Amino acid sequence: MTGEFELIARVTEGLEVNSDVVLSVGDDSAVVSLQGDTVVCTDILVENVHFKRQWSPAHAVGRKAVAVNVSDLEAMGCRPSSVVVALAFPKDLDPQWVVDFEAGVRDECVAAGVSLIGGDMSSSEIIVACVTAIGDTMGQQPVTRSGARVGDVVAVRGNLGLSGAGLVVLQRGFGSPKSAVAEHLTPSIQYGEGRAAAAAGATAMIDVSDGLLADLGHIAEQSGVRIDVHTASLPVDDAVARVAAATGKPAVGFVLAGGEDHALAATFPADADLPEGWLRIGSVLPGAGVTVDGAEFDGSRGWDHFG
Amino acid sequence: MTGEFELIARVTEGLEVNSDVVLSVGDDSAVVSLQGDTVVCTDILVENVHFKRQWSPAHAVGRKAVAVNVSDLEAMGCRPSSVVVALAFPKDLDPQWVVDFEAGVRDECVAAGVSLIGGDMSSSEIIVACVTAIGDTMGQQPVTRSGARVGDVVAVRGNLGLSGAGLVVLQRGFGSPKSAVAEHLTPSIQYGEGRAAAAAGATAMIDVSDGLLADLGHIAEQSGVRIDVHTASLPVDDAVARVAAATGKPAVGFVLAGGEDHALAATFPADADLPEGWLRIGSVLPGAGVTVDGAEFDGSRGWDHFG
Repeated sequence: MTGEFELIARVTEGLEVNSDVVLSVGDDSAVVSLQGDTVVCTDILVENVHFKRQWSPAHAVGRKAVAVNVSDLEAMGCRPSSVVVALAFPKDLDPQWVVDFEAGVRDECVAAGVSLIGGDMSSSEIIVACVTAIGDTMGQQPVTRSGARVGDVVAVRGNLGLSGAGLVVLQRGFGSPKSAVAEHLTPSIQYGEGRAAAAAGATAMIDVSDGLLADLGHIAEQSGVRIDVHTASLPVDDAVARVAAATGKPAVGFVLAGGEDHALAATFPADADLPEGWLRIGSVLPGAGVTVDGAEFDGSRGWDHFG
Repeated sequence: MTGEFELIARVTEGLEVNSDVVLSVGDDSAVVSLQGDTVVCTDILVENVHFKRQWSPAHAVGRKAVAVNVSDLEAMGCRPSSVVVALAFPKDLDPQWVVDFEAGVRDECVAAGVSLIGGDMSSSEIIVACVTAIGDTMGQQPVTRSGARVGDVVAVRGNLGLSGAGLVVLQRGFGSPKSAVAEHLTPSIQYGEGRAAAAAGATAMIDVSDGLLADLGHIAEQSGVRIDVHTASLPVDDAVARVAAATGKPAVGFVLAGGEDHALAATFPADADLPEGWLRIGSVLPGAGVTVDGAEFDGSRGWDHFG
């Protein structure tokens, strides 16, 4: 690709890295010095699937690409260290888009406390960003999806339904509530909350990206338990309530299945002191699957019966 | 994406991993237990840029996606450990393509001695594969691009020009020489050669992906030296010679600038015993840039003066 090296030089100029980085951009690979085991996750963002150019400024796409990955490290209770970013884009794309994207990457890296240490660039018919995040266990056990035990409580940290509500707003051609739109364009991750949950004794944890019920379903399946969600305990953001009212949909539907929340859901022993900001929303029971207020939830019926 | 979970289950069924893998696919992140520092690189392969569906079987694309990444770890003299693979593809793509791609990924992982530990899937208008490879230093210093010293010898390991010749063959609608086409579709990496070079005292090393001269230029620039290539020492594969003859181009042009070779080029102290298979092809001198047989090379003139 013409200008690749110049563009890489431009977007990595003055790049600062944390003390755990041994070798940053500019070689065949990057090198980081980690404590304990190495934790790795990758997420690919595709134009017109995960974002639209007319909705998302390049800076927001860059931030989101980092945020959704680091959120997956948080969900292991691990310390995020660094990211590598591969970006493919059309040859006729304004180079400023790439510069703004990389500025978003760098800004979110600062917010997350991680270093941008490498990447790749290619031409492509559409924009595709693939970020891989690296973290470490610092010698602690990672918190998996399989450790929930009967008697545990279920708790969440972060916004539920706000991103899904923002998507509905954008799809209808509107721009407000602004908080919902902003949350959809760049999820606001509570960095450090995964480690706080691990320190508080979380037995299982997951990044809520497919919707709360779907992701609690992964914990239930992998832990061999049933999870019951108490709808009365669920937080309903004002903006979610407004979008729900405007669209005639039940607000709890956004909260239970909005998608792309990038909140954390975890299980804790019943006597655990939950870290600040975590909210109890359910319980771990014998059995299988996820129930809502004790009743089997039939996803095919949609959310109307919650209205 | 409909069927994503079923497809992931299908392509990861019976997945075997090496003993350094603590947690493989199925959680928010994977965990590996490494020795020394963690080494990371990422490469993105885009349909119609890095491969064409009508030329490359899915299995070959999967193999290539792993190979080009692990080659970047080899170029650091490091031990490859594992890969994560993100794949985006059209909703109407035959699922068998994805299954074959993942089989290629798994086969190349076996060849490279690495474990597939995670990934992501998305829909997309075109096929995009992004692999991130993880390795470790085993407590040794990684071999960077900046360590070449005046008086060192320059050596290469692997095929030069064969992939570029294969691309020309495919572009002209032919299928032979088969060895050139096969090398373009899936580069044959000499796994373990990077570590062997490091053990033999390599002072600088690079994965030859942009063409030998271009990549030696990176070593020259980052090491603050001049590199002179001796064309009489360059290996010219029979298939490269045949393609060169058929197309009226000088064979040495393919060797010096073919691209996508994924050979290794390294510098060694003059008295080093080169590992088997490495070939001396040049010398490290005071100055800057890359020269060919002592003369400045003018890329804009093309390769005709080598004919």
